[in-house]
Amino acid sequence: MGLTLTEKILRAHLVDGEYVKGQEIGIRIDQTLTQDATGTMAYLEFEAIGVPRVKTERSVAYIDHNTLQNGFENADDHRFIGSVARKHGIYFSRPGNGICHQVHLERFGIPGKTLIGSDSHTPTGGGIGMIAIGAGGLDVAVAMGGGAYYITCPKVVKVELTGKLRPWVAAKDVILEVLRRMSVKGGVGKVIEYCGEGVKTLSVPERATITNMGAELGATTSIFPSDEITKQFLKAQKREEVWTPLAADPDAVYDEELQINLSELVPLAACPHSPDNVKSVEEIGRLKIDQVCIGSCTNSSLLDMLKVAHILKGKTVNPDVSLAIAPGSKQVLNMLAQNGALSILIDAGARILESACGPCIGMGQSPNSKGISLRTFNRNFEGRSGTKDGQIYLVSPEMAAVSALTGYLTDPRELGDMPDFQLPEEFIINDNMVVPPVDEADMDSVEILRGPNIKPYPETSPLLETIDAPVSLKVGDNITTDHIMPAGAKILPLRSNIPKISQHCFAVCDESFPERAKSLGKSIIVGGSNYGQGSSREHAALAPLYLGVKAVLVKSFARIHRANLINAGILPLTFVNEADYDNISQGDELVLADIRKAVEAGKSEITVLNKTNGKEIPVLCELSGRTKDIMLAGGLLDFTRESMK
Amino acid sequence: MGLTLTEKILRAHLVDGEYVKGQEIGIRIDQTLTQDATGTMAYLEFEAIGVPRVKTERSVAYIDHNTLQNGFENADDHRFIGSVARKHGIYFSRPGNGICHQVHLERFGIPGKTLIGSDSHTPTGGGIGMIAIGAGGLDVAVAMGGGAYYITCPKVVKVELTGKLRPWVAAKDVILEVLRRMSVKGGVGKVIEYCGEGVKTLSVPERATITNMGAELGATTSIFPSDEITKQFLKAQKREEVWTPLAADPDAVYDEELQINLSELVPLAACPHSPDNVKSVEEIGRLKIDQVCIGSCTNSSLLDMLKVAHILKGKTVNPDVSLAIAPGSKQVLNMLAQNGALSILIDAGARILESACGPCIGMGQSPNSKGISLRTFNRNFEGRSGTKDGQIYLVSPEMAAVSALTGYLTDPRELGDMPDFQLPEEFIINDNMVVPPVDEADMDSVEILRGPNIKPYPETSPLLETIDAPVSLKVGDNITTDHIMPAGAKILPLRSNIPKISQHCFAVCDESFPERAKSLGKSIIVGGSNYGQGSSREHAALAPLYLGVKAVLVKSFARIHRANLINAGILPLTFVNEADYDNISQGDELVLADIRKAVEAGKSEITVLNKTNGKEIPVLCELSGRTKDIMLAGGLLDFTRESMK
Repeated sequence: MGLTLTEKILRAHLVDGEYVKGQEIGIRIDQTLTQDATGTMAYLEFEAIGVPRVKTERSVAYIDHNTLQNGFENADDHRFIGSVARKHGIYFSRPGNGICHQVHLERFGIPGKTLIGSDSHTPTGGGIGMIAIGAGGLDVAVAMGGGAYYITCPKVVKVELTGKLRPWVAAKDVILEVLRRMSVKGGVGKVIEYCGEGVKTLSVPERATITNMGAELGATTSIFPSDEITKQFLKAQKREEVWTPLAADPDAVYDEELQINLSELVPLAACPHSPDNVKSVEEIGRLKIDQVCIGSCTNSSLLDMLKVAHILKGKTVNPDVSLAIAPGSKQVLNMLAQNGALSILIDAGARILESACGPCIGMGQSPNSKGISLRTFNRNFEGRSGTKDGQIYLVSPEMAAVSALTGYLTDPRELGDMPDFQLPEEFIINDNMVVPPVDEADMDSVEILRGPNIKPYPETSPLLETIDAPVSLKVGDNITTDHIMPAGAKILPLRSNIPKISQHCFAVCDESFPERAKSLGKSIIVGGSNYGQGSSREHAALAPLYLGVKAVLVKSFARIHRANLINAGILPLTFVNEADYDNISQGDELVLADIRKAVEAGKSEITVLNKTNGKEIPVLCELSGRTKDIMLAGGLLDFTRESMK
Repeated sequence: MGLTLTEKILRAHLVDGEYVKGQEIGIRIDQTLTQDATGTMAYLEFEAIGVPRVKTERSVAYIDHNTLQNGFENADDHRFIGSVARKHGIYFSRPGNGICHQVHLERFGIPGKTLIGSDSHTPTGGGIGMIAIGAGGLDVAVAMGGGAYYITCPKVVKVELTGKLRPWVAAKDVILEVLRRMSVKGGVGKVIEYCGEGVKTLSVPERATITNMGAELGATTSIFPSDEITKQFLKAQKREEVWTPLAADPDAVYDEELQINLSELVPLAACPHSPDNVKSVEEIGRLKIDQVCIGSCTNSSLLDMLKVAHILKGKTVNPDVSLAIAPGSKQVLNMLAQNGALSILIDAGARILESACGPCIGMGQSPNSKGISLRTFNRNFEGRSGTKDGQIYLVSPEMAAVSALTGYLTDPRELGDMPDFQLPEEFIINDNMVVPPVDEADMDSVEILRGPNIKPYPETSPLLETIDAPVSLKVGDNITTDHIMPAGAKILPLRSNIPKISQHCFAVCDESFPERAKSLGKSIIVGGSNYGQGSSREHAALAPLYLGVKAVLVKSFARIHRANLINAGILPLTFVNEADYDNISQGDELVLADIRKAVEAGKSEITVLNKTNGKEIPVLCELSGRTKDIMLAGGLLDFTRESMK
């Protein structure tokens, strides 16, 4: 029986557990990346673990999130991360060098290697055949320290691509189609593996768009084979030597299969407020727009920008539309400057933003109130744009650009013939904005620069004997990490200060939550299905930890968030019967009697008593050997420190 | 007796009063400009006045301040301003088109014309021989409605330039030298007029740097002659037809004279926290730096950027320094993109920001805590950078660029030979980001777009019979408008919402002031000398108005702020004996008995009774006929509405 590409790479990196789908496995991590919004905490955790030099093949710290800098906090974080990186063996990508995933793909990613990153869009690396997974900062810290990374051994979904995209239909439309079919929950516990003849028609940046936004499926990751096109891309990056051909065996067996005929796809848009609320332009109808934003780790490659420049050439942005463009990296920006495309964008009236995440994470360019904004990004959760009633549509760069001219959501096929866009045979290579670490012998010479907003990891405690606590908050389905721990320009600078950022926890749902939870001392959160979807931010677990949340009881969890809860020592529980969700109200007093003994004994089904209405509710507490030990210890940091003793 | 250039232009525009220095005169305004942070309020005021179409020759509304957009407020303001502009006959410069003063100089300014702008750096226009003055938004609204603009007929200071700047000594060093000699108070009530052989050695952008930063002298404005160099600049902008030669008569008589031999100047820096705290590199000594910012209305011209690119070419920004560059306009940015200079900047590791005010107004790029930042800007007031303990040095682009490479404050003369930098014979002209107004016949078709953060002008009331109120705040000397009404990325979006922004009034000095003032109902502020220096923001008067401040009693006022207080109906008073400042404490109860009658009677010296200690304090209440009527009416808006009836 042949192997999937996923299984080949995972098996080659297996260091703990058995390769049985659904069971937890530990894999060796070759590369890590962090961005700055999760990075400060990750490096504080790395320092707390106490390993002097990273043990990975390559670890890179990027600055791409908090780049507006509306206060001292961001620059302090940048300096802290830069100093930790230099000392401990990490490469430091300076602000302005670009978005982590774009730069990592260009300059560091290697087919067949494993990468974890403290950013949910790390699967971008799957575009060149990596197993690249988004993880909590603490997981990244442990991996940098040489520890394994643990995941549920995933099912593998085969997405067979046939045909060829028609003119002005984009890679973005491929992943929107996958989202339309699978939904934001459809990828949980799975790796999405692309194959088929259609793969050969997609460039590396197009593949990376697809694996990048695969994060929105809830998938563990997505992956493309490494082939001649991959080789050509790496050669153009002067990194041909890292290339190896990689593909699934022809007789590989998959858990699920999906067929997509690229020739049949049409331009699509994800409508407010979910990436899987996907419709065609025709279905949406006439839609006047206020803003267009082009960029983000999903769609900021040179190829994307060249298409946009082609469409805008000699034209002017519609007077009712604000068009912002952020090329994804210094390399992309410099190539655009040299080949004349940047001048075209400027001339047409585009607002050129720094090469960074920017508006995708609500870092600037919030639309007007009730504003309709087309964005080439990956998420359109309510409020994420910084405008509570903003209406965000996720589209391809092609659709974004043509709509910026017309002022209406416009099918890019109206443009008619499409030239054959090609990547250059050689990219401009200048890694001068990546600062290498000092030699190990010199590491004592590096002073760690710690600003006053940088506060230590919150206090933890081993799992209690019994959890007897009220429900401080009850929420519904599809709660995202943007609900739990909002981002945006006002809150992101507080990522290094858990006490302060915790004051914004669940601000979108209930502004009184932080004060209530803190005053209760300890409490429990109750939620619906797909709780914690979205980003990898461990702050969505650390803020509840700081506020005294001891357990989260929901219908189902998103993968990374559940892992982050365990890492933070917060008990993740799911209803045995989803209908029991209705048997708990906010304010009810719940008791998990002898929960520590139950976890020690490996009991997976336990009973919660609702003291307020007397009901007994069966819940699942699925912790394997390792996660059990982490939970008993009070979280991954304590567990790791203990196990390193 | 010959005339100064200032007198020639002012006399040609005189519509009210006599041309007697020190007396109030009303002048006809040919052009106006607004930026968006003051613009929303200015256009609300224009609407309240009720004139359907602007009566100026040219009025332009720029968007350059609130361009980060961390919330819906900014985009709402942009749309509001854009819609008002289209309807009422104003040209609308869209976000991304550049900084108002840079764009106005390039595309709209005309030698010999008068310009007022709701931004204190409006004197930039003096670089091409305009009388260009910073004013409150309400003054601009009145001028758009066809009303005269009132100033104290100014003294004229002759600054005679001789010699020629040596290599790597810059126009910035000229104005820093003037500031060193005259101080931030030295220009009050004066126009600074440049002449002499040295003028011919300075390009228009260099002249504009000097007149721009002349605002820091407290001067009414600064002006250069309009000569062949002006003509060449306008020709390169394809606007040769608006040129006229203008200069002072050879036998003009000035009130003061200053000699500057350009050949003797050295590179200078204004040290924290005042633009007149000027020292040479040698005097400052070895100074390790954390950040460099290049741009702003002072130093963002093509010429500045070409020099910076020359210095950075093939080099890399020092690893300990963050270098941000914001070219001043779309025209500059596009020329840099086309001539290869932008690629040089990117390649060296500069962070390219949108063409806007940006970090100069604390809109992003706040330095790290205690960070030392070299900036080519015009102001280094404490906290203005967004970092309370940031240490800001104001320098030339040349010094900024070379220091970004070395990591230390560096004398650019170390660069050795300097090439002969030349402006192009033709700039790239594309005004597609300036939206013209609709024809008057179509104005009813334009809907005004009013977002929920846009609140009306605060309530006013006619001058009270007697002001009997406590001192809600006592402050010291040199209080800037940044103290009174802080700007920065967090507060600027509230400029359209006086109730909300008032909560930040005097936040730098005393966070409890807004609540205290509001609860007192009515109160008085006491201050030292040069009170209200800095920007033109009328919000520094409107917030106190909203908070119930009835009078401000200080040792001396900055010009624009005093006018803004009168416009807001707040009584501006100065001590007859400065020593009496010590006879009032915060909390003291003051009485201005029968103040209305005193103002009506034109009494300039009145007595304030300090009820708390029984002392009688003589103060000056200098209101001329017109300002007297404004004050009695309760401010300029009421006065204007009444007089238009």
